[in-house]
Amino acid sequence: MKVSKPRGTRDFLPEETARRRNVENIMRQVVTKWGYKEVITPTFEHLELFTLKSGEGVVGELYNFSDKGNRDMTLRPELTAPVMRMYVNEMQAMSRPLKLFYFENCFRYERPQKGRFREFWQFGVEVIGSNRADADAEIIALATNMIEAAGIKGDLHVGHLGIIRHILKDTEDEQKSKIMRLVDKKDDEGLDNYFEEINAPAELRRNLLELICLSGSDAIAKAREILGDIEEIDKFEELLTLLDAYEIDYNVDLSIARGLDYYTGMVFEIYAEGLGAQNQICGGGSYQLISLFGGGDVPSTGFGVGFDRIMEICEIQPPKENKVVIVATDDTRTDAIKVATKMRNELTVYIDIMKRNFKTQLSHANNIEADYAVIVGKKEIESGKLTVKNMQSGEQLQLAIEEAIQLIKSN
Amino acid sequence: MKVSKPRGTRDFLPEETARRRNVENIMRQVVTKWGYKEVITPTFEHLELFTLKSGEGVVGELYNFSDKGNRDMTLRPELTAPVMRMYVNEMQAMSRPLKLFYFENCFRYERPQKGRFREFWQFGVEVIGSNRADADAEIIALATNMIEAAGIKGDLHVGHLGIIRHILKDTEDEQKSKIMRLVDKKDDEGLDNYFEEINAPAELRRNLLELICLSGSDAIAKAREILGDIEEIDKFEELLTLLDAYEIDYNVDLSIARGLDYYTGMVFEIYAEGLGAQNQICGGGSYQLISLFGGGDVPSTGFGVGFDRIMEICEIQPPKENKVVIVATDDTRTDAIKVATKMRNELTVYIDIMKRNFKTQLSHANNIEADYAVIVGKKEIESGKLTVKNMQSGEQLQLAIEEAIQLIKSN
Repeated sequence: MKVSKPRGTRDFLPEETARRRNVENIMRQVVTKWGYKEVITPTFEHLELFTLKSGEGVVGELYNFSDKGNRDMTLRPELTAPVMRMYVNEMQAMSRPLKLFYFENCFRYERPQKGRFREFWQFGVEVIGSNRADADAEIIALATNMIEAAGIKGDLHVGHLGIIRHILKDTEDEQKSKIMRLVDKKDDEGLDNYFEEINAPAELRRNLLELICLSGSDAIAKAREILGDIEEIDKFEELLTLLDAYEIDYNVDLSIARGLDYYTGMVFEIYAEGLGAQNQICGGGSYQLISLFGGGDVPSTGFGVGFDRIMEICEIQPPKENKVVIVATDDTRTDAIKVATKMRNELTVYIDIMKRNFKTQLSHANNIEADYAVIVGKKEIESGKLTVKNMQSGEQLQLAIEEAIQLIKSN
Repeated sequence: MKVSKPRGTRDFLPEETARRRNVENIMRQVVTKWGYKEVITPTFEHLELFTLKSGEGVVGELYNFSDKGNRDMTLRPELTAPVMRMYVNEMQAMSRPLKLFYFENCFRYERPQKGRFREFWQFGVEVIGSNRADADAEIIALATNMIEAAGIKGDLHVGHLGIIRHILKDTEDEQKSKIMRLVDKKDDEGLDNYFEEINAPAELRRNLLELICLSGSDAIAKAREILGDIEEIDKFEELLTLLDAYEIDYNVDLSIARGLDYYTGMVFEIYAEGLGAQNQICGGGSYQLISLFGGGDVPSTGFGVGFDRIMEICEIQPPKENKVVIVATDDTRTDAIKVATKMRNELTVYIDIMKRNFKTQLSHANNIEADYAVIVGKKEIESGKLTVKNMQSGEQLQLAIEEAIQLIKSN
């Protein structure tokens, strides 16, 4: 009976897995050099962790289930909430700032479509304990560095929710949320209609539209013209100065709203070419979830990188390692094992496990694109010298095992 | 509101995660040197994949659920079935033998107890396409090498189901299964009672009991005395000869039955000290699942290593990397960022993101056990030389940035 993989999921064959692991390691190296430490949380969590964060509406998109003890569980749709839960449960006594990262799979129940899967991978970073522009700048610079390390040219947009929220400070909460969502969707027509509907003051409308269109080097000056010298603009300006020190290219973009209410100030998104409409590969900002989960009033800032989208456009191939195939005859099988065992301390070594004859072993070495065949025949056992064949040039040398290892390693 | 992690699951804090990743990488290096390639399968599968393999009885131990499309799904309890499904779906055209490995999480719903978790990790290896003793020997030797690389002394027991099954060849299938299960559990009394119950011939009882007690260097000879020169013993003897060539210590143990019916011949288990009653850290054998899943009659052999049990007794600590903390003043913050950016190409570098003053930054460097503090003050900017302080000895040097990097790297 043939069983298929679940709809919207993927099997990763060896070649693709190697490509993914290589890029994962490259990004891991970057984040480690910045002093971040990895954490791992459970693959499923209590459902309430995510309804608390995002409201009941999120349940429709989750892989939720009742376990055999009738508890409401869900496969995690993202990792910021789990990491903040872990902080509240187990890390409050640790010295702050905490600099954490994770690389894990997440799940969402939605109609599978190009580039969107029901199981997908996120590389994420969170700083816990700082609300300074310095933390925000480090987070943005780190995200940019990770994406660059994957060989991808990103287009970074940076905004600050405090600035837009300041304009809306006299607007009702419900209306504010709706306006922020329309701004985030860049739905100008919807925004116009909604302003009409709630009969918003003309000045508010004009100011908001002007703000979300600001860009370029005079954006800060223009924002000050509209809003005056407010604290949020000072902080945003400080952030941009620090980004300049990191030599990061950015676009000021006050229309970034990131949809959700727990973001507090800085927000950013990175887009990449070659992905069509779904071109966002990274998003983040400063946020407050810890108090919601029963911890103190501890600020945090972080981001998530969509690893699957990175892999769609990343062209980095894993480094090639020399592949050695030991070729033996039926009466030298155990000698071949001893040679393989010794060589495996330093090299990638294949040995026949199909009881193929000498000739078939050699042609299999060719099939699997071996770089070297090391022949362990009767003659080789007697002389104590292996025959090392360069599969590309055809050149053959008689070498002691240590010499053979050195030759192959150096090529 | 405080949310806890689900019962029976774990949060891995930074220190433990680093320890686990390090051992994972060590084992990964071994398996790669043997020419095995990693694959990744979905975290959940169609429920029928596992009921097909293990019968309906398995459902009680699974994290199964209906998805929003009313399909019966389950979190995977193990990875052999998923990898064989993947083979049938996508890899039948590839050149055999296929040498695959995986390192992934699995799930079982059972009462949490010491050392047993509802989410746990398996490092597994499968060879597809060979039924030779050479494949079995390679698999056992590889398992042994991986466990040794983790610094663990394992106690390897090797058996062959074909030998016991030969004795039971005239016994009904249902009785055979029951007997095999009692043998596997080492339940001698249960076995006695069951033989009584089914009125088994005295010779069968005597031969079986004698077989499953065989051990030591004359085990093969004694098995021949009982059963004659049967093919299964020849193959088992060939396997032991190859294990000798790998210089692997083993115990012949024909009482290993591995419970499940899809094992075909060689079976093995590895136990470790320091784990109490649950001391099995690895188990495997040759098996046939591919035809059950709708593929051809392709033999396979493999094993799984219980990574959580390995981590319970493994004492290997991750290599220590020099930790550098940049210490700056308020008016050298952007200079400090430039120094950090340069140093991060080669070193792990922390920089203040809390806007702490100079003195507090230096004492934080001490708190997080930095190896070096690199001071970027006004004096340093003017002279072009950084002050590099060895935090252990207290020694301070004035160095250009490249000299500083070289000094820290070399220590």
